[in-house]
Amino acid sequence: MEESYNQLKQRLAEVKDLDAIAGLMGWDQQTMMPPRGAGVRAEQMATIARLSHERFTDDEIGRLLNDLTEFEASLLADSDEASLIRVTRRDWNKARRVPTELAAELAHAAASGYEAWITARASSDFAKFLPALERNVEVKRRYIACFEGAPYDVLLDDFEPGLTTGEVSAVFDRLKAGLRPLVERIAARPDAVDDSCLTGDFPSDRQRALVLRIIERFGYNPEGWRLDPTAHPFAQSLATTDIRLTTRYDERNLAMALFGTIHECGHGLYEEGISPSLERTPLAHGCSMALHESQSRLWENLVGRGRPFWRFAFPLLREAFPDHFAAIDDETVYRAVNKMRPSLIRVEADEVTYPLHIILRFELERDLFEGDLSPTDLPDAWNTKMREYLGVEVPDVANGVLQDVHWSAGLFGYFPTYALGTVVAGQIWERVRVDLPELDEQFARGEFLPLREWLREHLHQDGRKFTPKETIARVAGGPIDPEPFLRYVTARVEEFYGG
Amino acid sequence: MEESYNQLKQRLAEVKDLDAIAGLMGWDQQTMMPPRGAGVRAEQMATIARLSHERFTDDEIGRLLNDLTEFEASLLADSDEASLIRVTRRDWNKARRVPTELAAELAHAAASGYEAWITARASSDFAKFLPALERNVEVKRRYIACFEGAPYDVLLDDFEPGLTTGEVSAVFDRLKAGLRPLVERIAARPDAVDDSCLTGDFPSDRQRALVLRIIERFGYNPEGWRLDPTAHPFAQSLATTDIRLTTRYDERNLAMALFGTIHECGHGLYEEGISPSLERTPLAHGCSMALHESQSRLWENLVGRGRPFWRFAFPLLREAFPDHFAAIDDETVYRAVNKMRPSLIRVEADEVTYPLHIILRFELERDLFEGDLSPTDLPDAWNTKMREYLGVEVPDVANGVLQDVHWSAGLFGYFPTYALGTVVAGQIWERVRVDLPELDEQFARGEFLPLREWLREHLHQDGRKFTPKETIARVAGGPIDPEPFLRYVTARVEEFYGG
Repeated sequence: MEESYNQLKQRLAEVKDLDAIAGLMGWDQQTMMPPRGAGVRAEQMATIARLSHERFTDDEIGRLLNDLTEFEASLLADSDEASLIRVTRRDWNKARRVPTELAAELAHAAASGYEAWITARASSDFAKFLPALERNVEVKRRYIACFEGAPYDVLLDDFEPGLTTGEVSAVFDRLKAGLRPLVERIAARPDAVDDSCLTGDFPSDRQRALVLRIIERFGYNPEGWRLDPTAHPFAQSLATTDIRLTTRYDERNLAMALFGTIHECGHGLYEEGISPSLERTPLAHGCSMALHESQSRLWENLVGRGRPFWRFAFPLLREAFPDHFAAIDDETVYRAVNKMRPSLIRVEADEVTYPLHIILRFELERDLFEGDLSPTDLPDAWNTKMREYLGVEVPDVANGVLQDVHWSAGLFGYFPTYALGTVVAGQIWERVRVDLPELDEQFARGEFLPLREWLREHLHQDGRKFTPKETIARVAGGPIDPEPFLRYVTARVEEFYGG
Repeated sequence: MEESYNQLKQRLAEVKDLDAIAGLMGWDQQTMMPPRGAGVRAEQMATIARLSHERFTDDEIGRLLNDLTEFEASLLADSDEASLIRVTRRDWNKARRVPTELAAELAHAAASGYEAWITARASSDFAKFLPALERNVEVKRRYIACFEGAPYDVLLDDFEPGLTTGEVSAVFDRLKAGLRPLVERIAARPDAVDDSCLTGDFPSDRQRALVLRIIERFGYNPEGWRLDPTAHPFAQSLATTDIRLTTRYDERNLAMALFGTIHECGHGLYEEGISPSLERTPLAHGCSMALHESQSRLWENLVGRGRPFWRFAFPLLREAFPDHFAAIDDETVYRAVNKMRPSLIRVEADEVTYPLHIILRFELERDLFEGDLSPTDLPDAWNTKMREYLGVEVPDVANGVLQDVHWSAGLFGYFPTYALGTVVAGQIWERVRVDLPELDEQFARGEFLPLREWLREHLHQDGRKFTPKETIARVAGGPIDPEPFLRYVTARVEEFYGG
């Protein structure tokens, strides 16, 4: 028994290594690789994906899982061992449906799409992106055909296992209903909040030093972390001891790098907090993308846009840019970072409009895979929905349909998890404030580790041991529920835009 | 036939991808990885090495090679196809002797050694390095036992296939005899050349900008290259379109980054110059380490320490550091970069003493694997030979036995290729100067591409198509011969230190 378990663990460690290596290759491609390297890199990504898939779907893993049925039944369900066997069985049955060659093609199409997206976005030319997009849609359709579910359910399952399109729609309908009146309220008072103090001349090296000082209080540590610039920020874990954050600097505006880095740091803290006993197993990863996003959004918004945080952070801001902030106080900055307004770019959107950016993408993706929308229709469909949901006119594709990297890498079904994570963050926040009544005072003193420890204990350490639904119930106290978030965001609008 | 060939090529492309990925992981470890990542990285390196070895030594590759015997005979021997079959057969027979688990252990020991070396060197504490060194020696002994040759011949063969310890000794004996009188001459006149103009206050970002301006004339292009700082500079090719150089900056002295970067650029030009038709095959690599080093040393010394080069480079130097070089002229810098003196550090050694640093390492390695030297004896043995060959007292292990990264990564048998490359560079230089009589005028105008094209045509494009001995004969006009180098270096000593 133990022998079979060790054999399984060793095989899974190899697959996990390959996946982490693919992560390194992706990180490198987006931060370091010279542009001409893209062609061969796509081949190398395909090779790793092929090998990883081939090794994981090996018959021998199925045989070992079979051998271990009795052993698994003898263990506590929440033990590392039982969880590893249970989760692997589910992953293995899923992966076995996909031919290895298709897994390699998906990786190749994803890696090739990145350069096409960079080029197309730089020249705001959708036609330059279209072939890569069509290729990614085409291979994804073949992937969907490997499964029995509805197309969009299949896509969702890769990011939020077990969640259905119907469940997403139910949450999103409630969000739409709750948010649209709020959007009207903020749109009616465009000058209620003045955020001009965030605009100025902020060299990126000083921005970098500032955000590092902040996230070091959250747990960032150069011994096991990095922070690099990139075109589309992300976080990548190569091990719980090797966490890579990326960010983007706007030298005219502080908000992008500041909130972007805090956001990615939230992802990094989740990955770092996974129990070391799960290292090099398939459980050593955040449980689902909605849960991941619950962490990044919690740090970015519920922490980073709160008054207590700015009591701590404002003096650092003033030290970093003494001339600019000489005559500005913390309350002014606190109000500025909470300005809300319908706008073009998702990653710069405020807390009220953000979910509508996501709902738009969800609907387009669903229509692309289940309706009659074709890739060529995307720019027009995008612009129409932006007008309808946010009252915003899109001037060009760079600020519209080409703003996000995801579709270039075949990441369809991923976007909904951003809004779901926002919702889950609202649920977690209500609980954590009950459990940690001193939170505001701690934040004001720059003490964020009590929050991190709470999150580690209630979420991070478990990695993928439980299903997303089980894990959400554990950390948030119940199923996905938009009401706490809507309560929170309504209070925010009332605070800054009146009742 | 063609079907078998394509199958072989596809399998080899996968192995080549894995090797390039291992290259990326090594590059990342030495330039980017946070220190705590080292433990898991060593496991990941072992996984890639295991997979690469396992896929390459697969029976099926042997069967395909067998099938292709007739096809190979029907082709011109210097065709890409015949070369691929021929070289693969040799590589495959060699790799088949090594158990896959041992290949993984070698990679693990090598990756683990790097952090130990960094730590030990920083505190100049050999004891901290010893366990990693002993482990690397131990696994290397098991590797040697897989083959029939003498231990050091086995080690040499990994870097300079086909070359024997006896052949190396013969060249090195001649070098010793030729160089020691020259060393005495330079040691007798320590003040003949003044290199104080290279010392001052040179911020590394401005050094970086300067060296980039220089190597861009050689062919460096950010579209397909990178340059990053590291502790022990190296060059890494991930594809002919993705060349990574690394360098080290001494903010008190210009010489290190300047000549170090030119040196690594020489390696990069070799890798970039390989025929695109060989991309993703095992032939897409420099032919041997001596040939590689012939390129780096040729650019570093025969180009970079020449008067014509400084006619071009001096104005850039003055633009980069206008105050420092306001009252200094190009002839002064030319003399300064040619100062010779017995010294402690190999990578900073002049052209005369450099080969003696190598001969010392060669003799220690040989005694470690064929004599009765043990790893614990290395510091004393090192210091004794430094005194004997160069008349230099070693103050501490950081400036002695711990100065080089190689042994931490199990690279035994590698050092000799540095001096052999220096020798081959001398041979190539004599030929190239006949073929390109305008070279000096071109260099003075900043035109280095004619030289690069000559090297590409006579060497780079062929990659590993021919054996090192065949390749040396093609580019240098005959077997390894120390006389051209000795003639060149004697003339240099006469120029700067008198007859």
